[in-house]
Amino acid sequence: MSNSIFDTLGAIVGGAIDNWGWADRKVTALVINKIVESTRNRPHPWSTASDYTSWKSLTDRTYQARHLPAAAPRAQPTPDAIKELFRRPAGQQLLSKKSTCLFPAFAQYLTDGFIRTDPHARNRTTSNHEIDLCPLYGRNEAQTLILREQSQAAGRKGRLKSQIVNGEEYPPFLYESDGSAIKAEFAGLDKPLLGPSGAPDPAPEKLASLFAVGGDRANATPFTAMMNALFLREHNRIAGELERRNPAWDDERVFQTARNILIPLFIKIVVEQYINHISPAPFNLVCDPSVAWQAEWNRPNWITAEFSLVYRWHSLMPDAINWPGGPIPLAQFGLDNRPLLQSGLVSAFAAAAAQPAACLGACNTSEAIMWIESLAVQQGRDNRLDTYNAYRRQFSMVPAETFADISSDPHIQDILGRLYPTPDDVEFYPGLFAEDRVDKSPLPGLLLQMVAVDAFSQALTNPLVSEHVWNEATFTPWGFELIQETKSLGDIIVRQGSPIDPRKITMTQPGWSYGWHIP
Amino acid sequence: MSNSIFDTLGAIVGGAIDNWGWADRKVTALVINKIVESTRNRPHPWSTASDYTSWKSLTDRTYQARHLPAAAPRAQPTPDAIKELFRRPAGQQLLSKKSTCLFPAFAQYLTDGFIRTDPHARNRTTSNHEIDLCPLYGRNEAQTLILREQSQAAGRKGRLKSQIVNGEEYPPFLYESDGSAIKAEFAGLDKPLLGPSGAPDPAPEKLASLFAVGGDRANATPFTAMMNALFLREHNRIAGELERRNPAWDDERVFQTARNILIPLFIKIVVEQYINHISPAPFNLVCDPSVAWQAEWNRPNWITAEFSLVYRWHSLMPDAINWPGGPIPLAQFGLDNRPLLQSGLVSAFAAAAAQPAACLGACNTSEAIMWIESLAVQQGRDNRLDTYNAYRRQFSMVPAETFADISSDPHIQDILGRLYPTPDDVEFYPGLFAEDRVDKSPLPGLLLQMVAVDAFSQALTNPLVSEHVWNEATFTPWGFELIQETKSLGDIIVRQGSPIDPRKITMTQPGWSYGWHIP
Repeated sequence: MSNSIFDTLGAIVGGAIDNWGWADRKVTALVINKIVESTRNRPHPWSTASDYTSWKSLTDRTYQARHLPAAAPRAQPTPDAIKELFRRPAGQQLLSKKSTCLFPAFAQYLTDGFIRTDPHARNRTTSNHEIDLCPLYGRNEAQTLILREQSQAAGRKGRLKSQIVNGEEYPPFLYESDGSAIKAEFAGLDKPLLGPSGAPDPAPEKLASLFAVGGDRANATPFTAMMNALFLREHNRIAGELERRNPAWDDERVFQTARNILIPLFIKIVVEQYINHISPAPFNLVCDPSVAWQAEWNRPNWITAEFSLVYRWHSLMPDAINWPGGPIPLAQFGLDNRPLLQSGLVSAFAAAAAQPAACLGACNTSEAIMWIESLAVQQGRDNRLDTYNAYRRQFSMVPAETFADISSDPHIQDILGRLYPTPDDVEFYPGLFAEDRVDKSPLPGLLLQMVAVDAFSQALTNPLVSEHVWNEATFTPWGFELIQETKSLGDIIVRQGSPIDPRKITMTQPGWSYGWHIP
Repeated sequence: MSNSIFDTLGAIVGGAIDNWGWADRKVTALVINKIVESTRNRPHPWSTASDYTSWKSLTDRTYQARHLPAAAPRAQPTPDAIKELFRRPAGQQLLSKKSTCLFPAFAQYLTDGFIRTDPHARNRTTSNHEIDLCPLYGRNEAQTLILREQSQAAGRKGRLKSQIVNGEEYPPFLYESDGSAIKAEFAGLDKPLLGPSGAPDPAPEKLASLFAVGGDRANATPFTAMMNALFLREHNRIAGELERRNPAWDDERVFQTARNILIPLFIKIVVEQYINHISPAPFNLVCDPSVAWQAEWNRPNWITAEFSLVYRWHSLMPDAINWPGGPIPLAQFGLDNRPLLQSGLVSAFAAAAAQPAACLGACNTSEAIMWIESLAVQQGRDNRLDTYNAYRRQFSMVPAETFADISSDPHIQDILGRLYPTPDDVEFYPGLFAEDRVDKSPLPGLLLQMVAVDAFSQALTNPLVSEHVWNEATFTPWGFELIQETKSLGDIIVRQGSPIDPRKITMTQPGWSYGWHIP
């Protein structure tokens, strides 16, 4: 099915692409504005606080915003029947030709920072509604203080607590060494989410390997733990450099300025590595915060109920992860940082970047995580989200008139036809994932559109990249330059002293080709 | 001294003014944009959290934002010496030719809602940073619930608690009838601020007359108490009308929708009665929220450290208030609602509108409230605000080069010359009030400019007047119409059943003339 925005990119692009495939600022601005303006800007009139607009719904940010109002109830298939749409038929998992496992690894770490549905009340959220690296720094100042080094001594100013294991820097361990209990000093952190409710706790030796971090999901897999460890090292490296260059600064100023630098550096990677990987366009957008300064969509962020379902990308995960020490079945790839400690950080990143991800979409979810799909369907119903077609309209896309408009795969058409009377009845979450992937993108059309809208309108409205903050006074001249020159996770790994070729730390498979070349 | 913005209004206006002196939407938009764009838009890079930009300073809204960064310490006169600049010479208080006492009455009620400097930490604030009528509804949901009627019975849906005294509706009394203690049901409200620290508590019979309200300053004087009572009556009237028109609605929806309507109705009065009174222009601006929808200054509100000093308008208060029952000396005009209960609401409003206010500015503060001026000077120093001239530059005004550029009054020039070596040394707060009032405005130039910038950029960015909320779905068609047709406090009083001529409830004295007429 045609994608209204990305089909028109070719017409916009013209010749403003350099030899390396990077678009100039003007093209980037045109593309971003065209995408974000495909839907209504914030503030959203509705939230999960009430079915009608109220001062509470407009201001209480512990509820989730809504792109569309709560829909009237309608006949729905049972969650068990819908599982068929996600369950992989016997045989091989469908693997992506574009994405490596670094893509889902980064996506999970990124989104766990702001998609924070309260597990006890699925219409509430604990999100700060910003890309603030809270998996690293904690959700509030009390948690940040727990994670910071207390010494404040010269040579250790502004650092996050860390430990050395096998000669490498990691966050400290969260539990006592026998895995029996969380250390008293870390009692104020969010407890790690330990898998599906009712499941037995992980073994003590696994718990003993978990890190003391800001995010309750940063220990979810060795992938998220490696991301967090990388940014912890970069924070401490930046703090060391700031301390050396500004000997009069106290512990507090070194810490705050290092965080000032690290958040936009992370946003740079979000746009220039991650979004460019997702994009079907054969050129790279540049991360230019000034795009947002005059934009009508520059309004305060507020994570929506829809967004927390848009980002259920479990089918990206292969059945087994090719870890340096040997493959780890997906069901065992969680809440256990021992593989990371054994392999070391750079090997872990290199392995993630060397393995193809699975394809995102229907009929491709690993049996080990099917339970999450059922929860997602139920969450969409609990929040009374409108239909797939209603959201296509809301994001300026043509609604599906036949099941073949959703998927070109007869098997998926057949399942949809058995689940729903007409395409207009298809629910939001099943429809999102049943849809064909956009050519040259790892994502289906509506999902791609919604991810792009929210990514740009959230990342580029961060207060640290706002008009009167985005300058050398905020970051120091050295820090401002560091942000500008960072384009990928590989750039960070290399400047931390690794001799690896940064291009190997890639979300896009080395053999991938867009099939045509920019002049 | 010339005022860069208001001097150019004449050139902008052209002929787009109707016979009643109301500017059309296009002129209004031009004027508002010109004013607000005279300074940097939000987010402000600094707050009182730290002297440099940090994630904390950009996100922790319990600190005050800053228009300018903290200034280096400089030699300053003693607070006692500065008192001379505010203290009125023996004899009559200077009275305004333009303003009635309804002007300071409304200004205090308005600003107490969002200028909420924490009395225990003058760099912190308890503000919600919005015009949200929190003096009526409370600062948070727990307080709102305490103030709402619990019965939820038909005929009483969505109402605020009230009582009838002498046949008129008021908020319930906060204290037990002997004034000995706050009633248990109101324990969760902010306690009323009972005057200067160290002063004895008011007599029990005064305390027994205080109302249970959302704001800790809403009982400050009978003026603020009458404002609050008026809006309580209007809330309950609107709730009754909504209940009658929407019989299927529950208590919650009636309450929330009445609040939806009352907040923009209040904003309408802020712009169309209060700002138009302040303005030196001989035409009225219209309150058109769409002005803000595309504006670059449409950014989240954040009350600044400067703003809490800009609004110290104590010199507006005459030495005695001409209450219907006889004059009340200013020192006794506080924390006592008995005069209001005796006179009734409409008589109180009419009396306020019939008495000239005093002139705002140097050498005109009543001895009874001189202690507040000293606190204000100290607050500016504690928050290390930059100089008067630094703020003139920041708001696109020419800095003063001589003391005569600040004031045309030789007596004030003389005091300034004794207090400060040069005009560049004049502190922010003393400079604000030493300056000449703008011709045809009750306010001096820099102060007028700062009030106008903040008023427009805060009132018109309220979420209830945002692009996708400002519609009949939010307010009901009846409520939307009610907002549109409300232009003044008199309009509210009249539709509550009073036979008074609404033009008598005026902030501008009846005899006032701009001296020339719009064609």
